[in-house]
Amino acid sequence: MTDQAVSGALERAVREAVERRRDELVELTRELVRRQTTLGAEEPAQVLVDERLRAVGFAVERVQPDGDAARADPYAGYPYLSYEGRSCVAARLAGSGGGRSLHLSGHLDIVPVERPDLWRHEPWSAEVAEGRIWGRGAGDMKGGLAAYLIAASVVAEVCDDRRGDLVFSSVIEEECGGNGMWSVLRAGYGADAVLIGESTALRLGHAGTGVVWARLSAAGGAGHAMLAGGDGPFDRLCRAVAGLRRVEAEINEPVRDPVFAAVRERPYGMTIGKIGGGVWTASTPHELVANVRFGFGRDLEPAEVQARLWEVVREASPEVEIQFEAFRARAYCHPTSGPLFDSLSAAHQAIIGSEAETVAFTATTDARYVEGACLCYGPVAGNLHGTDEWVDVETLVQTATVVALTAAEWTA
Amino acid sequence: MTDQAVSGALERAVREAVERRRDELVELTRELVRRQTTLGAEEPAQVLVDERLRAVGFAVERVQPDGDAARADPYAGYPYLSYEGRSCVAARLAGSGGGRSLHLSGHLDIVPVERPDLWRHEPWSAEVAEGRIWGRGAGDMKGGLAAYLIAASVVAEVCDDRRGDLVFSSVIEEECGGNGMWSVLRAGYGADAVLIGESTALRLGHAGTGVVWARLSAAGGAGHAMLAGGDGPFDRLCRAVAGLRRVEAEINEPVRDPVFAAVRERPYGMTIGKIGGGVWTASTPHELVANVRFGFGRDLEPAEVQARLWEVVREASPEVEIQFEAFRARAYCHPTSGPLFDSLSAAHQAIIGSEAETVAFTATTDARYVEGACLCYGPVAGNLHGTDEWVDVETLVQTATVVALTAAEWTA
Repeated sequence: MTDQAVSGALERAVREAVERRRDELVELTRELVRRQTTLGAEEPAQVLVDERLRAVGFAVERVQPDGDAARADPYAGYPYLSYEGRSCVAARLAGSGGGRSLHLSGHLDIVPVERPDLWRHEPWSAEVAEGRIWGRGAGDMKGGLAAYLIAASVVAEVCDDRRGDLVFSSVIEEECGGNGMWSVLRAGYGADAVLIGESTALRLGHAGTGVVWARLSAAGGAGHAMLAGGDGPFDRLCRAVAGLRRVEAEINEPVRDPVFAAVRERPYGMTIGKIGGGVWTASTPHELVANVRFGFGRDLEPAEVQARLWEVVREASPEVEIQFEAFRARAYCHPTSGPLFDSLSAAHQAIIGSEAETVAFTATTDARYVEGACLCYGPVAGNLHGTDEWVDVETLVQTATVVALTAAEWTA
Repeated sequence: MTDQAVSGALERAVREAVERRRDELVELTRELVRRQTTLGAEEPAQVLVDERLRAVGFAVERVQPDGDAARADPYAGYPYLSYEGRSCVAARLAGSGGGRSLHLSGHLDIVPVERPDLWRHEPWSAEVAEGRIWGRGAGDMKGGLAAYLIAASVVAEVCDDRRGDLVFSSVIEEECGGNGMWSVLRAGYGADAVLIGESTALRLGHAGTGVVWARLSAAGGAGHAMLAGGDGPFDRLCRAVAGLRRVEAEINEPVRDPVFAAVRERPYGMTIGKIGGGVWTASTPHELVANVRFGFGRDLEPAEVQARLWEVVREASPEVEIQFEAFRARAYCHPTSGPLFDSLSAAHQAIIGSEAETVAFTATTDARYVEGACLCYGPVAGNLHGTDEWVDVETLVQTATVVALTAAEWTA
């Protein structure tokens, strides 16, 4: 047989094996959505991932991030919550030797739901409707993780003569610092290439902006409102945020990193995602807090951004304290060429029937930690972090098929 | 006997009767502090007040505010919480007829504690130290309420030939709209004069500013922070608050009401007491909210202030919604002369040995609802609405004595 014929046979076998698992993929995604893996509550879903990987022959271990080591690494996250009882699943299906290894990864953690009452589809019941699975995390990224798990089981079934290792990880804290993937890679789960199942709408996601988070706090000196007026902790927060907006404008006008300049105008977003403080309208609050997310390009280091934000807050609102937390993620851009890119593009072409497009995110992903070849590839999804989040079922199946085919050929 | 001799005998009897109840007064204050009467949790302490009044011969009833009627009254509060299971204690100790009636009142509701961990004296254990009772509500105004209860029991004991009725009320929602006292007065508990036991440091509190509360909300359109930037709901709130600050400056420069102009510079305070919204730093929030307290003088009606605030928010930040809640209190000023003023001043002079001073508050009290004679009179206290709130024990006893003597003579 020619290579082409081998590939054709492999493609058919992979297609059929994924197709047989279509319902399983949908149910697995739904079950992962039902297990509400908000910060600190990842374990009940990790157990499921752990069991599935063992069932198809992976050697599985748990990797707990080392908070002190993360703090000491200028690109790792600041630990956002104790790692006690929380860990990543890291697994290996060894090849016979001499081949190329591939690491399939996804994050299991999700962001919270602000207003469940506004969802048409209850966020934790994982309803299937309109060809979509609805729920918090369906698109970011339990669908992609489930598709990768299905792909891994297909590779385990179909490719009995693999030479390269297939590595799998299900990580925590992608949404708040990235110490999950960071710790998995440090624990020896690097590979010749890495695919991450973020929802890319079947595009090859190769780049992401830098992101830092900051916590602004303004002290109020708790007391009766009758004694206050003219200025207060809220006004001080406003001045600090206005200062940060000036930095945001500076780095967006012009955008110096061509990768993100090509994405859209003003690719570097600053968001005040959360505010809080005070318990009574007529009591001066002890402290008001605003939580800030700040994006930037490869022309700036996270530490430079932090220094600039610190400086501008000191100038604009000296009584406001700024602390950095969770993300200190540098911007990254993996090449849109090379063996992984070619292999994934070919599999996409074979399964989807069109040329694969690339995409750069104005957010970060765990791909920033990977020194070698790494791409994100996953389904069509919508309303990530928002109301009525969903993932498309058909592209979920296609993701599993493309990734299984890529993995089979890569590790052959 | 001459009148002077009668008065001297009465004064001695009152002094002795209060002195015998000194420990009881301290313990009653402490027990009221221990019963944490934050919004909605007033009943366990009302039961105690109810029982004590019955025990000394008062006819007691419960008065539940009528939310719809309050909404329809431009000076009543907007109901802040359902009145189900919540009520005021209103009580009457009838006189023999033909005398002057006096209403002793206090509010039982308290504001929440923001940071109990910062208190030197745990806010609910009502510690006695340094001649003070410490705890949330000790000064605002469970001390004053306890002193008035003791005064009422002294009057009941000492004055067996009273002609005027002694009325007593323990009201709710003084801290958030005032519908407690409003409903008690509507229920037929008006009197020829009213004393309210707010902590005035033994001064005669005769005036208070107007107060309105407003809730500012800015919609964010929940979603991923990667899609946001440049402007957002927090920035919109900042612009709205900046607009409100301009109104605050207008009414403070100059202050047109001479009563409050005399209190201090900028007597009309605006406070952002509470902010909230959003659940994740990297998620655009669905809605951010800032809760505003706004003070003003007798030259403005609450409805005028509301209209001005509404207008300025519409101009400064049209996407921000403003809703009014709890207080729509007009500023008030009771005369510093007349029979009640003279009677209370004389009792103060007799017991304290100094001339009584007057005080105008830059906050509101339930005294605004009283059409006739009304004064606030109560102990020395500190850190109201703040950390380590306290009430002074000695002036608590003095309050009980002065108020009992005033009541005895007023209702004689």
